[in-house]
This record gives sequence, C-alpha cells and structure tokens, in this order.
Amino acid sequence: MKPLRFALAQMNPTVGDYSANTRKIISWIAAAEKKKADIIIFPELALTGYPMWDLANKKRFIEESLRHLARIVESTRGKKIAVVLGFVDKSAKSERSRNSLAWIERGKIRFKYVKRLLPTYDVFLEDIFFEPGQETVVIPWKGRRVGVTICEDIWDKRYKEKPLAELRRKKADMVLNISASPYYRGVAEVRDRLIKRHAIHYNFPICYVNQIGGQDDLIFDGRSLFVDQHGRVLFRAPAFAENLFYFDWKPSLKSPYEVAMPAAAGSPREVYEALVLGVRDYCLKNGFKKVVLGLSGGIDSALVAALAVDALGPKAVLGVTMPSHFSSRGSWEDSEELARRLKIECRVHPIKRKFEFMVKAYRGHKKKEGKSVPEPGQVTLAMENLQARLRGLELMYLSNDECRLLLTTGNKSELATGYCTLYGDMAGGLAVIGDVYKTDVYRLAWYRNSQGEVIPESILTKAPSAELRPNQKDEDSLPPYEVLDEILYFYIEKNLSREDIVKKMKGRASAALIQTVIHKVDHNEYKRRQTPPILRVTEKAWFGRRMPITNRFES
Amino acid sequence: MKPLRFALAQMNPTVGDYSANTRKIISWIAAAEKKKADIIIFPELALTGYPMWDLANKKRFIEESLRHLARIVESTRGKKIAVVLGFVDKSAKSERSRNSLAWIERGKIRFKYVKRLLPTYDVFLEDIFFEPGQETVVIPWKGRRVGVTICEDIWDKRYKEKPLAELRRKKADMVLNISASPYYRGVAEVRDRLIKRHAIHYNFPICYVNQIGGQDDLIFDGRSLFVDQHGRVLFRAPAFAENLFYFDWKPSLKSPYEVAMPAAAGSPREVYEALVLGVRDYCLKNGFKKVVLGLSGGIDSALVAALAVDALGPKAVLGVTMPSHFSSRGSWEDSEELARRLKIECRVHPIKRKFEFMVKAYRGHKKKEGKSVPEPGQVTLAMENLQARLRGLELMYLSNDECRLLLTTGNKSELATGYCTLYGDMAGGLAVIGDVYKTDVYRLAWYRNSQGEVIPESILTKAPSAELRPNQKDEDSLPPYEVLDEILYFYIEKNLSREDIVKKMKGRASAALIQTVIHKVDHNEYKRRQTPPILRVTEKAWFGRRMPITNRFES
Repeated sequence: MKPLRFALAQMNPTVGDYSANTRKIISWIAAAEKKKADIIIFPELALTGYPMWDLANKKRFIEESLRHLARIVESTRGKKIAVVLGFVDKSAKSERSRNSLAWIERGKIRFKYVKRLLPTYDVFLEDIFFEPGQETVVIPWKGRRVGVTICEDIWDKRYKEKPLAELRRKKADMVLNISASPYYRGVAEVRDRLIKRHAIHYNFPICYVNQIGGQDDLIFDGRSLFVDQHGRVLFRAPAFAENLFYFDWKPSLKSPYEVAMPAAAGSPREVYEALVLGVRDYCLKNGFKKVVLGLSGGIDSALVAALAVDALGPKAVLGVTMPSHFSSRGSWEDSEELARRLKIECRVHPIKRKFEFMVKAYRGHKKKEGKSVPEPGQVTLAMENLQARLRGLELMYLSNDECRLLLTTGNKSELATGYCTLYGDMAGGLAVIGDVYKTDVYRLAWYRNSQGEVIPESILTKAPSAELRPNQKDEDSLPPYEVLDEILYFYIEKNLSREDIVKKMKGRASAALIQTVIHKVDHNEYKRRQTPPILRVTEKAWFGRRMPITNRFES
Repeated sequence: MKPLRFALAQMNPTVGDYSANTRKIISWIAAAEKKKADIIIFPELALTGYPMWDLANKKRFIEESLRHLARIVESTRGKKIAVVLGFVDKSAKSERSRNSLAWIERGKIRFKYVKRLLPTYDVFLEDIFFEPGQETVVIPWKGRRVGVTICEDIWDKRYKEKPLAELRRKKADMVLNISASPYYRGVAEVRDRLIKRHAIHYNFPICYVNQIGGQDDLIFDGRSLFVDQHGRVLFRAPAFAENLFYFDWKPSLKSPYEVAMPAAAGSPREVYEALVLGVRDYCLKNGFKKVVLGLSGGIDSALVAALAVDALGPKAVLGVTMPSHFSSRGSWEDSEELARRLKIECRVHPIKRKFEFMVKAYRGHKKKEGKSVPEPGQVTLAMENLQARLRGLELMYLSNDECRLLLTTGNKSELATGYCTLYGDMAGGLAVIGDVYKTDVYRLAWYRNSQGEVIPESILTKAPSAELRPNQKDEDSLPPYEVLDEILYFYIEKNLSREDIVKKMKGRASAALIQTVIHKVDHNEYKRRQTPPILRVTEKAWFGRRMPITNRFES
C-alpha cells in the first residue's frame, strides 16, 4: 500500500458565518493540495458551525449551506485532493434538515452521507432538528475501502443500529469520523478509549477530526486523532488549537510507536485553557473587543480576571472594585494588587454612599406609607441583595457606556446553592466559571500562578466571604467547600439519590446536611433560569440539565 | 350495550407533590365510586405532574411514584370502579423511565401500558427522559374491547408507528387517551379535528382526558372530550377548570346531538383565562401569596395588574409607580386610577432623585479618572437603561422585603425586538405576557374591560412609550405595532424566510424594514436567554424556540 498524506482540518467555524467559514475551507483545501495531501477532512458541520439549533430548520439557512457548498466544490476543480466536509443538507421528506457529509473530488460531489445516530440527551437535541440517515457508505479510494461516519455514529452504545458494524460488513478497511464533540473534563480519555476499542474490534484504522472553538455555553476541544487497526494512536492534534495538521500514514509500516495522551489531559491546565478559549470566542464572535468585571478581592473574580487577560490581553480588561461598608480593607487592596500584576485597568467605585442613599430613600418611602422599617444598622436580606445589585447596576452602566461585555464571576458551588444574587453578581453576558466548583477555582488559580504569579497570596488564602454583612463568611451559610463540592458532584454530575450520597460520603457529611444541600440545589432553579450562558467544563453542566422550577419533590 | 358512566378527572397536579396528588386521586376515586361511575380516567402523569424533565430520571422520584401508586391501588380494594391513571414507571433496560398508564381494578393493577410515541420537538423533550413502549394493549371490559393511549400516541402524523391503527387491528371498539397537552391559542380546534378524524377513520369512540393547570412556562387547558365513532362530540369539559366531570354514555343511542365548541375558543377571553391560570398556579405552587409589579401608566403593566388581580385577588397585588424626569403626568395619574379601579395598593416611588444621584456619582467617577463624560442634559443609552434598572432594583427590593413575587410586564413584541432592558423591566420571577404580541395586549385589555371597566380609557388610547428620554415614542424605534406584529408572527410562529415574509406582507412593509425586524429578533437572543419563565399562549413560544446567541447568519 502507498503511504497516504492526511490533512486534518481542526477548524474553528462561526455559526452562520458562511462567508468566513467558506473562505477558510477553500484556502485550507488549496494549502493542503500544495502540500500534496491526498485528503483533507473537515469537522462535522464545519461549513455552518455547530450547534446551530433552530437555524437548521430555516429554509434560507439550508439554501445558503448548499450555495456555499457549491462554491467549495467548484474550488476543487483541477485539484487532486479529496475533500470531506460537513454541511447541512435539505430533506425531501420533512421540514427537518440533514446533518450531512460530502466527499468532494475534482469539482464534483462523489457522494453524500447523512448522519444516522442523532444524539438527543444532555447538551444535544439533534432529533429535533435533523432527519436521520438510513444507509452507511463505503467508497473505493486509492486502493482502499473507506467508510464515513459523523460524530455520534461511533458513540453507538445506546442505539440498536451500529453503523461501524455495518461498515465492517461492507468490508470497509478504513473509517473517517467527522465530529463536533464538545469538551468536558475527562472527555479526552473517554474518546480515546472508545476509538481505540472500535479500531481493534473492527480491525480498521479510524481517522477522527473534531471541531475546536467556543459556541455560547459549549467549548470544542479538537484533539483530532489517527488510530490504527491495532488501536495505537499514530497522530494527535493538540487541544484548543485551530490548525491544519498533516499526518503521513504508511500502512505497511508495523507502527513501532504510539503517541501518548498529553499529561495535561483532565488537569487544571486543560480546564484553564478551555475557559480561555470559551471567553475569547464568545467575545470575539459576538463582536466584543473589551470586557468589564467586578473585582471583589475574592478568588472567583481574580481567576476570571486572569482568564480574561489570557483570552483578550490586558488592555481589553477593566476591573472595577466597589467596596461597601462590609468590605475589608484587604479586599480593595488585593484587587488593586491583582490588577497591577495583570496589568489591567482597575477603577475604584465605592458603593457606600450609593447604598446609604438608596436605603434612606427606600426607608423614606416606607415611613411615608406608614409601614414598619428595620432598625437602623440592621442588615436585611433585601439590603444584602441591594449591595450586590448596586454593583450589577454600575457594571451594566459601564458595559453600556463603554461597549464592554460584562463577565459574570460566580462559581458552580454558588450557582448550585443559590448563594448569589439575581441581577447582582449574577448579572453579565457570560458566566465564565459558573460550571467550576469552588474547590476547582482554587486549583485553576494555583495552576495560573504556577505560570507566573498573578493572583496575590492573600486572595488565595483568605476565607471566602460575600462581604454583604458584618463579619460574614461563606461557611456561616454553607458547609466547607471540600464537603459541599463533593455532595454537589454526586448530586448533579452523578445524579445520585440522597441515600446513595450518604453512603458515598462515608460520614464526611451528615444525612441532614446532605438533605439541606440537595434542597438548596432544587429550590434555586429559578435563579439559574436567568443566568447568561455558562461555559461548560463538566460532564453535567447546567446547560444540559433540565429541571422544573415549580417542583415540590424533595430529592 | 349497557350505558356506561365515565368520570373524567380533569386534574391539576403539582409536579413532585406526591402526597397532595395522591390524596386528590384517592378522594376523587372514592367520589366517583359513590356516584356509581364505571370508570375514572386521570390525565397523563397525573400522579407526578407534568412536565418534570430530569426528575423523571431520578431513582427516588421513580420509587416514590411506585410507592404512591401502590397506595392508590390499595384504596380501590372493594370498589367496583375501574381506574385509569398516568404515572412514572421504572425501566429494566435503561436509566430512562417510562411514561406509563395503569388500569386498576379491585385492589389490583390489571395491566400497565407504556407510551409509545414520545414527542421531542418544540416544548417537548420526552425522548431524553423516557423509554418508549413497544406494544399496544386492548382489554376486554364490560363487554367492550378498550384500547389505551397516552397523549402523543394519537398525534401520529410524524411517526411511522400508528398506535391507533394497531388498536383497530386488535379489534378495539373504544379508545381512551390520557393527556398532558399544553395550551396555545388555537389548540382546541386542532385537537377537536384530530380526535374527530381518528374516531371516524377507525370507527371507535375516543374518550380524551387532559391535565389542567400551570407548570412554569406551560399552561394546560383541560377541555376533556368524549367523541363517538361518528366523530360527534358528546361531552366537553370546560377549559381551565379543575373538576371531576361525569358523562353517561348510552352506546345504543343514535347520538342526536353534538356539543359545539364554545364560542370563546381562540378568543381574547380564552387567552386571558389561560394567563390568569398561569399566574395563579405559578404563584401558589411556588408558595407566593403576594405579588408586586411596576405600573408605568402603559397598557402592558395595566393588563398584567388586571390579570394578577383576577388570579390572586386585589389584596395580594401591589403596584408601584416610579415616575422619572421623562414620565408624563398622565402616566402617574393613570396608574393611580388603574389601582383605584382594581382596588389594589399603589405606591408612588419616584426615581428622579435616585437617577440624579447615580448619574452624578457615575460622572464623578469618570471625571476623577480623567475620562470624558456626556454633556449635561444628554441622555445616553446607558442612562436610559439605568432608569429601567433603578426601577428593577426597587421592585426587587420590595420583592425581597415583603416576600412578593415580582411580575414582569414586557410583551412578546418587545422581547422579540430587544426593546427592553436586562435587569430593568425584564427583571422578575414570571413574565406574564411575554408571549403576547402588543396588538394582542390591546385585545386582552378590551376583553377585560368588557367584563367591568378596570383599565382607564387614557391608558388604552395613549401612544406607547418607554418614557426613558424626552418625547420618546415606541414608534420612533419600531414600526407601527400592527405591522411589526405581523412580521414577527410570520417570522417566529411560521418560521418563514425573509423573502416569503416580503410576499406575505404584500407591500404593507418594505423588504428593508422586514430585514431590520428579523435582524433585531436574531440579535437579541442574549436578552431572552435571561428571562424568567414566560407563560406560553402561542404555538411557537420562546420556550420552544432554540436559537444560538453567537450567530452571524442574516436570516
């Protein structure tokens, strides 16, 4: 067998940006042809971007997909390279469209294939938008028999149909998979295992090409692969990097090597890099060059500031510290030190007088109406929330005034338990670490500091506090975060029952505490309904979790 | 054939409230037995409430369903009545559960049936949570052969499988359908046509029992039916009413009559009643006895105030009018007049001085930082939003302080075009008329006034204005609402392309205007991601529409 040169187009498309996506596709085809690649493989729905949800059922969206596909096909005229590309096709049968693949050669579409297994669970809803394909396709090419698949087609465990088994029966001796498989911590190992197992079981090599980039809540990590029929990884593209990668496969060579999984897989570094990509793409794809965020002196906002700087550069980031009556002096100084180290602009806008003015005005109204008012000095829940909301108000003012996207800094532990204020610290356009547990926030901060110490020691070591009343500490209202996060992990990510969590915690938390935490999670659904997109980094993120607000069940 | 007495249990369950739902089910069974009903039929998932989303896959949720089912079964011991009840069953095969029906007689479950067609589109996502059934069931009972179906099983157009055809082949001579079919304007006619057509086509009577009540965004309208094999409606339960209805069917009688569809079907009255139910159930099921809302002097807040009064009574409703520099004198007086007529408490909390204080503070910060500030008297976008947000801030303060649910008053036309402020007028726990177009807001207001004039004439006739800058009118930024709403209807509800809308509008709107409106809808998705639940009254509500925020496609 002759060696084959694969061009793996690990591309970052933008949903609906047909012109830019097409331009990139055409130029990458030309580049790969010049480098004498035999085939260039683009990810699932590379032409349209993914996920596009309801856009997939718009007549014009489908028409534009086909129009741009035709331009790409035209561009291959006179070229030798084969092109494999994901696009949206129309359906003759229904209003749904087809998640499709085109094999293009010398100015012609040699064949089209329609995705057969449509994931409909968690963050996927493809059954709603797409009509499934009915047939597998094997094509003779360069002396081989190549089978094609799209993403879920190889994640076949929950389906009766097994496209890979059908390809084997049709005597495929090599399989391509084009994917748009989103990131979560741990996905790399799961994917590796799956693809290796399939390659060995069916005895054919699998070339896997995955999308990279951020799309709203989802981050795609790339990490395209070439796995031989012995389950050995011969090529690995890096995570979170957009590039056209080349791999020369010499089928006759008894592969003497395997490319190991990078040590960073599943590490804080990986999660950090995912979030950087998520922030960058959300901002740039939505036309925001600058961001603003509140700096509380705590670890959450410090981490988000560092992520924003790494995503957009220090000039793009504005930090605002808004001390109140209950802010420690340290909070403010620590924020300024953080800003100095990150080289970002930091403004100090105290809310003390604003808070006093508002409380006085609200008291005034109540008194005039003959209603009872709280004792002077008493801090009610409404007043706690008012402080958070005055900060949200000011940040949104700056956001509107300076065209800066407001980054939300709350973490997953807070969002889970409702330890956050609607329209206050929950305000913003993107919740950067809303899927990161508090204990992981520390891990990410430590990792970032290991690359250059930007987060002051004092921020890393102080006890977490909302600072909305005198001497308030998070642990007055919540269990220690190591305990809380473990309970949350079992409840949210593992969907375990109260009883099973009691067993798993082996006495580290009482049954009553576990019950209280579960209650908090269930009864704060109304807050989470109003969050901005939350970048997903865990297997069960908010985005893929669907719970009623009106719910009397005590889990 | 002997006459049969049907008890149609048009029930309003609460999601997850097993104790209350079970209590009601047991007491209704006892009542129907006493009235000598032959059979009592409860809606789909009456035991658990519907939709319960991810709760359906919690081990304890399923266990509790079975435990309470056993109690209900036990309660039928010694009774003659047959009971048909929807509940969640466990699955041996997967983590998903089963949307099931039990036929219970004399302390025993005679058989269970599993829903076969699982709707997964629009507001339905059943494939995610449930495992489909594989078999139809026909049971001999009182000399008849009764087939059972659950909701979507009879909405079979988009599926290859046709459960009703299978029941016909199995010689069923009567079919029951238990449903949890949510309301939208027009659904009654669609359901009537479907059930009549099936009854005639398959030549069997169909008894249809539907849930009523509000569950987050969804409102269930009931309107249970008995349709004979000639497609004649022999019995109709009213819309939006929870009750146990009896119908005596005399099969031998050549039905001389048909119960006509009430004149109100699809009318403003119907939509109004749906919204009243939606508000009442959202508040009461979530433990709120009191609400608060901002009264702007405009038609939207006036309508929401009237709806709240009809849902919860005047004592439960607090209106707050918060005039600014740009509020007309009329706005304030009209709100007070509205409150007088509705007999609700109205407070006047001007935001003028609060606004001045904040703007001065924000200017002060900017000046100190050496940044440029707007000319005195200039009203920037940030200042417009600030006014709306100061109102949101004050309403949320009252909400926290007095345990009142804040009702959001924005309409569908505003939400569609982004003519609304995040954390300002969009703040709240329930968006009451967020699925009602502005032109329909007037229709609902006129209907309400026809039942007793509560909304002052001046509110009905003034030109809509946000009153956030001098002499501002909605029509400065938006086309006239009759035109806008028609474009929105074609775009959102009918999913038509730009070109098709141009044709439909027949010159009533230019292509450029249509393009502008579509652009506004697409590019305000980020605002709609952060709304509270929006009561659904149209076929394509926000809740069933899934669009990416990051999206460069120009529809």
